[in-house]
Amino acid sequence: MTGGRGDIRNVRSNESHCAARGRGYSHLPLPMSKSYHVAIVGATGAVGQELLSVMERRNFPVGKLTPLASERSLGKTVTFRGEAIPVRALGEDAFGGVDFAFFSAGATRSRQFAPAAIRAGAVVIDNSSAFRMDPGVPLVVPEVNAGDLAGHRGLIANPNCSAAILCVAVCPIHRAAGVRRIVVSTYQSASGAGARAMAELESQSREVLEGRPARPEVFPHQIAFNLFSHNTRVAENGYNEEENKMVEETRKMFHAPDLPVVPTCIRVPVFRAHSESVLLDLGRPMAPAEAREVLASAPGVR
Amino acid sequence: MTGGRGDIRNVRSNESHCAARGRGYSHLPLPMSKSYHVAIVGATGAVGQELLSVMERRNFPVGKLTPLASERSLGKTVTFRGEAIPVRALGEDAFGGVDFAFFSAGATRSRQFAPAAIRAGAVVIDNSSAFRMDPGVPLVVPEVNAGDLAGHRGLIANPNCSAAILCVAVCPIHRAAGVRRIVVSTYQSASGAGARAMAELESQSREVLEGRPARPEVFPHQIAFNLFSHNTRVAENGYNEEENKMVEETRKMFHAPDLPVVPTCIRVPVFRAHSESVLLDLGRPMAPAEAREVLASAPGVR
Repeated sequence: MTGGRGDIRNVRSNESHCAARGRGYSHLPLPMSKSYHVAIVGATGAVGQELLSVMERRNFPVGKLTPLASERSLGKTVTFRGEAIPVRALGEDAFGGVDFAFFSAGATRSRQFAPAAIRAGAVVIDNSSAFRMDPGVPLVVPEVNAGDLAGHRGLIANPNCSAAILCVAVCPIHRAAGVRRIVVSTYQSASGAGARAMAELESQSREVLEGRPARPEVFPHQIAFNLFSHNTRVAENGYNEEENKMVEETRKMFHAPDLPVVPTCIRVPVFRAHSESVLLDLGRPMAPAEAREVLASAPGVR
Repeated sequence: MTGGRGDIRNVRSNESHCAARGRGYSHLPLPMSKSYHVAIVGATGAVGQELLSVMERRNFPVGKLTPLASERSLGKTVTFRGEAIPVRALGEDAFGGVDFAFFSAGATRSRQFAPAAIRAGAVVIDNSSAFRMDPGVPLVVPEVNAGDLAGHRGLIANPNCSAAILCVAVCPIHRAAGVRRIVVSTYQSASGAGARAMAELESQSREVLEGRPARPEVFPHQIAFNLFSHNTRVAENGYNEEENKMVEETRKMFHAPDLPVVPTCIRVPVFRAHSESVLLDLGRPMAPAEAREVLASAPGVR
């Protein structure tokens, strides 16, 4: 790695650690005294529900909430701050007056409707894989590369769940000692595949415990009391798509296009929360005590 | 690595691959035309039951079977080849006429009763950790280091379950290309902690599905729909005991006392079958196709 954008350590060269939590907001015109019209595309899904919960918990200044979803969710409501808000149909005309549109309804819907949201003046924060590797789209985890938010053009991608948690933990070590290679094995919960996958883990576990055979529908294999290589297509390079995302997205966020990242992505029968086993080869020796110290003060790491 | 015993590739320098399955038997005076008196210590446990099943399946020439267990299993029977055989009490006098005594009832019982079995003329094959790292005791997986059986003194240890499956898969690659470092993350099932742990996974999963809180008894943490660092004590070096076993036992079986092995051992909510994610640094480049070819012809690897 050489200087400039190729070296993540130089991106925030005036800071001894990662960006403090929330500092990323300063890159957006986002005074927290104002309130905002927020749309959530995929509001009834697992991620949409979690977004609502996080906005409540962090007291995000939502002035108006517009939950959007596909036809089959019409008639449903979502609950936000104790209020039941009817779900509206996702369409190109759904984004009038919206300040921020969070998309979490799959890459196809993001590709179809994000342009309309941007035209309507919203900043789109896209949780799908649709735009992540687009060179013109910042791919951001605030704790890792908030600086990349500068110069966005109405569209900000956030990474795959496995890449996000990896980078939050690895970034402070990388800044302290220069990561030369990342070897990572994941233990990924059903939640990463959405609410239907979590329901399948529950119902299939009941069936197996009752001695009935597992009938996989959402996942390609039995998830109850079983684990398997991540449920994405295996690409020509022998890695599944989830693994390839981890490699590419980590390199993009770290501004390190050649960083060796060796992932193994495995789905495990857990409802929520991904785990990862990570080995880092570093540019200099680092004692465990120093690593613990670096991580203890790192934002987003507990 | 230099030659001789420091280099596993020289141990069987006349063979292009690992020992063929069964060849290990030639190191013991074991004509398969004879039949043998086999004792199983811990016959009612998860491993004991599996041993019986394997001996049936492989048509092992058992002339007489003596299932041994602790007091609380007295009155029980085990089934072998369709016959119910009463469990006998484990004691120093239990090994008269026994040819092979398989011990799988924990390290304490192995330390207490293996000497009596050896004195009675039995060859003890010990599944516990009691003697594995004893320099005078061969630690053997036949597919890996059957040659080490030569010169045994009535006691043969087999390795920790995670080390065993690791070495069977890594050994052929090691012989072909020289492994310089092993990075391994495990996905270990409840079975490795015994029959009671498997029962806890089952009953606790039912409880959690019924909305009741998990009450861990066998494992230190909730195992239903959860995972955690292996349920052994964390040693002073920061690794848990299972991880330290993987390092030490792999080095002993590979005759490579300085081989870097970096394990992360995790318990997952699966009933049976451990899995591992393994990264190998090799002494020379090896294309995936060559690795597949080597593994396709390796004994014990499917």
